[in-house]
Amino acid sequence: MKEFKVGLLGFGTVGAGVVEILRDNKSLLEKRLGASLRLAQVADLDVFRDRGVTVDPSLLTTDAESVVDNPEIDIVVELIGGCEAARSLVLKALANGKTVVTANKALLALHGREIYEEATRNGAEIFFEGAVGGGIPLITAIKENLCANRFHTILGILNGTCNYILTRMTHNGEGFDAVLKDAQEKGFAEADPTFDVEGIDTAHKLAVLIGLCFGNLPDFAKIYVEGISRISSIDIEFARQFGYVIKLLAISKWGKDGIEARIHPTMLPVDHPLAAVDGVFNAVEVVGDFVGPVTWIGQGAGRKATASAVVGDVIQAARNLMAGTRRRTAPLGYLADVMENLPIKSIDKLIGQFYLRFSVIDRPGVLGKISTILGEKGISIASMIQMKRKAEARVPVVMMTHQCCEADIRAALKRIDAEVEICDPSVLIRIEDNGRD
Amino acid sequence: MKEFKVGLLGFGTVGAGVVEILRDNKSLLEKRLGASLRLAQVADLDVFRDRGVTVDPSLLTTDAESVVDNPEIDIVVELIGGCEAARSLVLKALANGKTVVTANKALLALHGREIYEEATRNGAEIFFEGAVGGGIPLITAIKENLCANRFHTILGILNGTCNYILTRMTHNGEGFDAVLKDAQEKGFAEADPTFDVEGIDTAHKLAVLIGLCFGNLPDFAKIYVEGISRISSIDIEFARQFGYVIKLLAISKWGKDGIEARIHPTMLPVDHPLAAVDGVFNAVEVVGDFVGPVTWIGQGAGRKATASAVVGDVIQAARNLMAGTRRRTAPLGYLADVMENLPIKSIDKLIGQFYLRFSVIDRPGVLGKISTILGEKGISIASMIQMKRKAEARVPVVMMTHQCCEADIRAALKRIDAEVEICDPSVLIRIEDNGRD
Repeated sequence: MKEFKVGLLGFGTVGAGVVEILRDNKSLLEKRLGASLRLAQVADLDVFRDRGVTVDPSLLTTDAESVVDNPEIDIVVELIGGCEAARSLVLKALANGKTVVTANKALLALHGREIYEEATRNGAEIFFEGAVGGGIPLITAIKENLCANRFHTILGILNGTCNYILTRMTHNGEGFDAVLKDAQEKGFAEADPTFDVEGIDTAHKLAVLIGLCFGNLPDFAKIYVEGISRISSIDIEFARQFGYVIKLLAISKWGKDGIEARIHPTMLPVDHPLAAVDGVFNAVEVVGDFVGPVTWIGQGAGRKATASAVVGDVIQAARNLMAGTRRRTAPLGYLADVMENLPIKSIDKLIGQFYLRFSVIDRPGVLGKISTILGEKGISIASMIQMKRKAEARVPVVMMTHQCCEADIRAALKRIDAEVEICDPSVLIRIEDNGRD
Repeated sequence: MKEFKVGLLGFGTVGAGVVEILRDNKSLLEKRLGASLRLAQVADLDVFRDRGVTVDPSLLTTDAESVVDNPEIDIVVELIGGCEAARSLVLKALANGKTVVTANKALLALHGREIYEEATRNGAEIFFEGAVGGGIPLITAIKENLCANRFHTILGILNGTCNYILTRMTHNGEGFDAVLKDAQEKGFAEADPTFDVEGIDTAHKLAVLIGLCFGNLPDFAKIYVEGISRISSIDIEFARQFGYVIKLLAISKWGKDGIEARIHPTMLPVDHPLAAVDGVFNAVEVVGDFVGPVTWIGQGAGRKATASAVVGDVIQAARNLMAGTRRRTAPLGYLADVMENLPIKSIDKLIGQFYLRFSVIDRPGVLGKISTILGEKGISIASMIQMKRKAEARVPVVMMTHQCCEADIRAALKRIDAEVEICDPSVLIRIEDNGRD
């Protein structure tokens, strides 16, 4: 039986999962592939730590370059994460003509163009099913099975940490800080959670999806990114009263004049397929002109689920090598020279519905001032909740707008916060309530 | 630009959708494929009917054999449906070394072995993404991206007609006959709805999924098939009271001693990802040992969605032809000679929870007799609803059992229907409430 040699860069959580699958499902993989996969080298800065899986010590090295340069190795699996070391190792592996499998969304979001071009130049191939949605099989699906479609919408819950925190805030009424602290203690959130809770990880993944769906390599800095750290329980409760749940969504919509690309807390109708996706699960919905909406739900992170995607890629890579091809499908499913060049639209241009919460002193005239300023900006209100409290006490006023422009909303809020007796800065949460019937 | 010639067998609903995509998204497909797809011949018994899309009349023929034998044609798309003509045409196309794309689940469920063997013998390739779940991209995902997993569970809502009927019965309280009649008038159900409402179409699709997930070509006759025609509104309402919805589910579970394969109305907890899948949408959940549960939701039928899957297959086929390979992945993702040979387990052996409804005359001792018979068969009751009505009137008694064996339940119901004063035959609905937390 033919054998393919796999070199692993990064022996962390997902790397250990990959070793585990190659060991536990060895005979199954051989039945499906008709060849065997042999782990030939494993590089990590720490070659002594116990990962819960055993690797022949002779395979371990701290020298990642030696894996990339090893002429025996057919497939290099990059699970180092981050951009610095990963970028140069992936580029070198591709320059050496090796097939690369990676789950590194930051690398693809920030250096995708350079990497795809290096792959093309060397007739090498790169797979990255694990980079978005962990184990969820959506990248090949978009490149192959759905490729007859012109896509116009991408919606995604792409970060398990954020979804776990929001789920507990929603179902248990807990506050953000308390849930984050507990999530950190349980290992569901990093010691420095910025990357996750501020939406950056989600934005990396959206950048990859935009490439796949729209054939457009977006300027990452142009993606609007707003995390969940300012979401409070009171907004989750008001959302519920209006029939919505709050999720951190990655949203991208195609338009002739540019592409919307934004990450922000979003109110979704409770009956939307993504609204019920709770805990560490991820979900993605894409809408194509022929297929309509397609939704995937699954585990978006973790040792086993991400390793499932990575080893799936290794099998695809090996099948191509056996078939004698390494350029069956372009990295993003488009020929390199026809990538689109549409700009990312500024968030100011967004037309949508908004949830607004004002924290005011319950005093005659306050609501009138707010309404007047909104009216002057052409913002009309679809529904409103004003809680009755003691006079002269702090009271929340909540409004849901009709369709209007984000720039107008922002200008109005700026004036309201400056001119009206407001206790706290006004809160704005975007609503995603169209595109479905 | 290289050109691939496509021959279409069957110019019905989906065939018209295929023609539409090839026309409307021509430039997009070329950007993604790097080659063009030309419709070279279209065979149908009726070459005059208006399908809403225009085809050059010179391409139309009533002679399907001439398409399969046309040496110019690279890819044959079979959309005739049914088994007779389709079987011999597909076999002949494969024997002629052509790549075949089909959406014909009946053909694959009943003649899969013969077809896959013919493909293997001739070094030809067969794609069938449209055969299960319409536009939902799950078949390639199972064969490629999830292939590192040992699967143990398949759950599916695979027939849009049934799901549409059950959704209206659930949300509007309508009866089966009324909804079916309306669905027929609206074109959501066939004039003869047996294939759909009795679960046969769903069983065909499950047979294909069993092949993909378990590497097992099941004996179709051994699959347990029970449709939705005996579901009544009262059972839907009781299900709701217990926190369940009723869906027609395809269920298959792997076991060392055999495979469960069954189609029947099923009570699903309201918070299960499949419970909210309404109307003509389809959904599938598979559970793998590494990836955990993965769920897909999308349009399971219809001109556009199914055509999306079919043209996606044509693109995959063309990519393989360009790469010079037609045997990159085996039809079911397993090498032909290692297909498993596990038997399908009899439904009698099913261990599960059951919903039972007895229609009794409200009279002292009746409930005692039922309980005694259930107790003698070792069936214990988890919860019960008995409605208070007028004495001597007909009243429903509803029970949810703990885990027990289907054979025991059936034997108990047979005795109850014979020995107790029952107004109508007792109703049994299986509950699917495990495997998730």
